[in-house]
Amino acid sequence: MKESMTLLKQTMTLHAERVEKALAAYTQAPDEDLQILFDAEEYSLLAGGKRIRPFLVNEVCRMLGGNESASMPFACALEMIHTYSLIHDDLPCMDDDDLRRGKPTNHKKFGYANALLAGDALLTKAFFVASSNPNVDRATAAEAVLLLSEAAGEIGMIGGQIMDLAGEHKKLSLEQLHRLHSMKTGALIRVAVQLGALAAGFDRDSDEMRSAVAYAEKIGLCFQVIDDILDATGSEEELGKSVGGDAEHEKTTFLSYYSVEGAKEYAALLTAEAISAISPMKDSEVLTDLAVYLLERTY
Amino acid sequence: MKESMTLLKQTMTLHAERVEKALAAYTQAPDEDLQILFDAEEYSLLAGGKRIRPFLVNEVCRMLGGNESASMPFACALEMIHTYSLIHDDLPCMDDDDLRRGKPTNHKKFGYANALLAGDALLTKAFFVASSNPNVDRATAAEAVLLLSEAAGEIGMIGGQIMDLAGEHKKLSLEQLHRLHSMKTGALIRVAVQLGALAAGFDRDSDEMRSAVAYAEKIGLCFQVIDDILDATGSEEELGKSVGGDAEHEKTTFLSYYSVEGAKEYAALLTAEAISAISPMKDSEVLTDLAVYLLERTY
Repeated sequence: MKESMTLLKQTMTLHAERVEKALAAYTQAPDEDLQILFDAEEYSLLAGGKRIRPFLVNEVCRMLGGNESASMPFACALEMIHTYSLIHDDLPCMDDDDLRRGKPTNHKKFGYANALLAGDALLTKAFFVASSNPNVDRATAAEAVLLLSEAAGEIGMIGGQIMDLAGEHKKLSLEQLHRLHSMKTGALIRVAVQLGALAAGFDRDSDEMRSAVAYAEKIGLCFQVIDDILDATGSEEELGKSVGGDAEHEKTTFLSYYSVEGAKEYAALLTAEAISAISPMKDSEVLTDLAVYLLERTY
Repeated sequence: MKESMTLLKQTMTLHAERVEKALAAYTQAPDEDLQILFDAEEYSLLAGGKRIRPFLVNEVCRMLGGNESASMPFACALEMIHTYSLIHDDLPCMDDDDLRRGKPTNHKKFGYANALLAGDALLTKAFFVASSNPNVDRATAAEAVLLLSEAAGEIGMIGGQIMDLAGEHKKLSLEQLHRLHSMKTGALIRVAVQLGALAAGFDRDSDEMRSAVAYAEKIGLCFQVIDDILDATGSEEELGKSVGGDAEHEKTTFLSYYSVEGAKEYAALLTAEAISAISPMKDSEVLTDLAVYLLERTY
């Protein structure tokens, strides 16, 4: 492994510890009556994972000269939204999954009603955490809520999920597939870098925000291409989640249009484009390494 | 009927039309792929109802000298949250209801997955609408999101739902019952008046906000007492929803502690206290009449 990749992994591990510490502060039940709700939230929120979205928030902020105290609440809010989406996605009326990150899914552990409400609570809390970020001004907090709610909502992640559901058992065009993923998984990756830039003091129309967004769009798409490859070729042990679900649900994936080798080449091209988008910015080595890391991941 | 009550009903009907017009602007699908999501949202959002929460937002704002253009986006956001909670509450894993306001519940009409996502989308959109309110300053928008997310979340409505679920088949103390309702239904009524005061330029620590909150807490509790009475004594035709659910789910209600007559007297006392809280404020006649209207409602 390249030395820079080893360094990146160390950086990400240390970062994940900081994020988990920050997240844990939000999962303390105020009293016994609410214990099961907070337990259900904590179970999924602190179930590990690479914390890529919060890493993007904090790293973009750092790269642009901002302070992690300003970006961390936004990073936590985004991870809460990501986590709620996993809890609801796993429910019997959606993907009906029993296993997530090697553990029983939230509803398997806490029951359907508590899992539904834990998801609702995490989504709601994300907006509380973003709007009450004490280390940014109020306009920045409002803008963060706006960006997050757009990315998580009907023209973002939820819209992508609707297209995904509607697309089962029928073949989507390659254009529809791109749009679906740009919304379903891409929107949260895009908003991660937007939140980072915002926390560092850059607005929607800044060059910095635009470059970061171009990077995020490419790695987001690459992330999904790799996901499709892993779902078809990976093992349940290695991934810590059910595999083969795409074929089972007759979903259109990038492997409906590319061979495994072709998909890998496409992912490599997207990674090169991501790196190119970010290369004019100073101090962009970590994001460059992250793009390579996401391309090469095997779980 | 008293003349002032007739006037209030006219005022509320005209207000409901304005709210529905405002809400309808948020349910236009940007394209065909997302049509079913927006249809599912619209189905529940525009299913009628008295629009009491948005009325409270806009009326408190008006009473305190504010403009409806500032309060209406907050009113819409709150109604979206109320509506999402109804959609998720009706799901099979929660109350499993088939009927809501005389029509099939959302999941009966659109299927479980679409209903789940329509609820998620409305909750998410509420924060988009509040944070992007163009007629208040950004600090006010951020504060509205903060208040809304607190009221809708784990120490508010969702926490109340958790207590409600945990309380099935066992008897809650009268104190627990009060706490449950203060969270489950009270929190959204309380935040309604807070949002109204906020839109009129009053902050959390103002006397105006405090008086309005005292009023809201009393009418919120009264609302629940009346709900319990109607669930036990009303008809499905009149209410437009299933009745007798409390007994079926062995829920503790105010009728576990009061006779129907005793509960009516308690509701009347709460109404008097609500009116008293608001009486020092000028131009409070509409809120006074509203408290009486909510006490006397039969559906």
